[in-house]
Amino acid sequence: MKFSIERAVLLKAVAQAQSVVERRNTIPILANVLIEAEGDDVHFRATDLDIEVVDKAPAKVERAGATTVSAVTLNEIVRKLPDGALVTLSEDGASGRLTIEAGRSNFSLATLPKEDFPVMASSEYAANFSAPAPVLRRLFDKSKFAISTEETRYYLNGVYMHVAESDGGKVLRCVATDGHRLARIDAELPEGAADMAGVIVPRKTVGELRKLLDDDEMKIAVSVSETKIRFATPDIVLTSKVIDGTFPDYTRVIPQGNTRKLELDASEFAKAVDRVATVSSERSRAVKLSLDEDRLILSVNAPDSGAAEEELAVAYGDERLEIGFNAKYLLEIASQVDRENAVFLFNSSGDPTLMREGNDTSAIYVVMPMRV
Amino acid sequence: MKFSIERAVLLKAVAQAQSVVERRNTIPILANVLIEAEGDDVHFRATDLDIEVVDKAPAKVERAGATTVSAVTLNEIVRKLPDGALVTLSEDGASGRLTIEAGRSNFSLATLPKEDFPVMASSEYAANFSAPAPVLRRLFDKSKFAISTEETRYYLNGVYMHVAESDGGKVLRCVATDGHRLARIDAELPEGAADMAGVIVPRKTVGELRKLLDDDEMKIAVSVSETKIRFATPDIVLTSKVIDGTFPDYTRVIPQGNTRKLELDASEFAKAVDRVATVSSERSRAVKLSLDEDRLILSVNAPDSGAAEEELAVAYGDERLEIGFNAKYLLEIASQVDRENAVFLFNSSGDPTLMREGNDTSAIYVVMPMRV
Repeated sequence: MKFSIERAVLLKAVAQAQSVVERRNTIPILANVLIEAEGDDVHFRATDLDIEVVDKAPAKVERAGATTVSAVTLNEIVRKLPDGALVTLSEDGASGRLTIEAGRSNFSLATLPKEDFPVMASSEYAANFSAPAPVLRRLFDKSKFAISTEETRYYLNGVYMHVAESDGGKVLRCVATDGHRLARIDAELPEGAADMAGVIVPRKTVGELRKLLDDDEMKIAVSVSETKIRFATPDIVLTSKVIDGTFPDYTRVIPQGNTRKLELDASEFAKAVDRVATVSSERSRAVKLSLDEDRLILSVNAPDSGAAEEELAVAYGDERLEIGFNAKYLLEIASQVDRENAVFLFNSSGDPTLMREGNDTSAIYVVMPMRV
Repeated sequence: MKFSIERAVLLKAVAQAQSVVERRNTIPILANVLIEAEGDDVHFRATDLDIEVVDKAPAKVERAGATTVSAVTLNEIVRKLPDGALVTLSEDGASGRLTIEAGRSNFSLATLPKEDFPVMASSEYAANFSAPAPVLRRLFDKSKFAISTEETRYYLNGVYMHVAESDGGKVLRCVATDGHRLARIDAELPEGAADMAGVIVPRKTVGELRKLLDDDEMKIAVSVSETKIRFATPDIVLTSKVIDGTFPDYTRVIPQGNTRKLELDASEFAKAVDRVATVSSERSRAVKLSLDEDRLILSVNAPDSGAAEEELAVAYGDERLEIGFNAKYLLEIASQVDRENAVFLFNSSGDPTLMREGNDTSAIYVVMPMRV
């Protein structure tokens, strides 16, 4: 194998590959990236056995071939090469070394046989559709904060992507929850997605996927089976197992009868919550909201360290209400609102609270109250 | 006690105080800042029993008095208050609470009695002089990287500041070493410093001092006794115990007879060292320098991961030499050189190497070689 490639192109492909590789591996070859050169392209493949990413990059291939080297070391080397350098990678098959040359720099890295590299089995995908990058970005960005980190509730360790009914029509929906808060984000159903099985996309996959979604003009090809999901751009294919579990019936958690409506500026609200939470104890982080006509008082009372109170001018016309929340949950939910007009809908101080932007029901959040 | 103060002024004073406070304290009051209001000023005082910092800030004092509150919590609160806010701090003495008001925000923090706050005993200082901030900045910035972190060699855990002979005249000198490398930085002797006792300024003090040295126009008043050192600007007084130990005789470590001279571009050199070190093993980090006429080859050979080599055009006219160094030490020393012309002076591959900028002997570095 021998090929020459631009440093910037190589870096992009290798960086994506090495981020999939786990730092600690019991199987040595999982630390490596599989490099395959043929025709006018080189493929860089990395996997942790659950996720596989393949990056295609244009290169001047002198001699076709394949080998595997440490993804982290290769990434480090390429990152440190001067911008604009032309990099030549070569391997003669006999030495068990990959040589990397750029300018007056010369590296040789230990390789492992390409035959030992675990390539993910190909699958039949029942549903295939395409979605603009900004649509997928919104679906996952606005829901991922609610993913649970409790390993025992493994079926909550991802975003549940599925087809749902909304206002009589069908939508593509992402839901995440950890039992304390929930995010439900809808998008227009792409053509070909109607028969998609509902799948739980793992947290790490959501993170890796995010790197494919920065380009607003990009269309992402999505393929879904009952066990796998694949996201593809012309240069990158990300394939991931989905979580083998049943996502709970979240619809029962979403309150339908909350009528006490509070409207406020999400950014002002977040800053005030952040300020009063300063004195709260590390563990509870409880903030009390006291609502009265067009007035919201945020307060924290921590016997050990002190107390804090702040008043906000808001729109509220219902009867008095006192309700407590975890400050962290309030901050995370408030930061999802792009527009000024965050709307909270309360029932009683013991019931889940609903939050959305204005009258837009395509992104709603539920947060459980806590005793204060 | 009651006073009003601008948020930006308060933040600056409290931020400096809280950085001296240790995060974990067995004595509760050491987590607090002592606030003393009188006349047109408020003093903020914090200590870890080894270092004490006192910040003076202008304020509108309505009622003189003093109390102590958590430095970290106060800093967090002030940081989160809106820019431009006027902050009122008040305490009635009976409630045991400090009230902080700004706009519609209201905080009350638990206090501890001001009488319990450990104020550092005042000292007689044998030497008093004043030095421009850029002079002290250079002395400490260029030496601190070599401070030892080995607690057993406590007498190396700081920068040794003392008066020394250089070229027949006297200079103010800072030296730091960890046994593997050494930095020796000289500055013109300020008036009044000639009789100063040599003192070892602890690492943490060097860090705190750095915050006083950003203003190029500032003159710093320095006072030195055998047990303490004090740095003062019109607004901030930083007092620190010095390390109670004897700094070793570093002059014997500095090679006098090194004649093999290598001249190179420090920045190019550092980048090349960084690149070849990528393949080195985590533990040894050894880089080999092979010198031949006007040519330097940097190389690393790590049996497990691979090998790397890079050639640099340099100025070298002596006989061939091969010598190994820890890559980290080479990088740190090279980053001290502001100008392009770094000069290395070698003896043999087993002897300490000297590095300086051009012919400037006011900043020299020594680094021990390692076997490669």
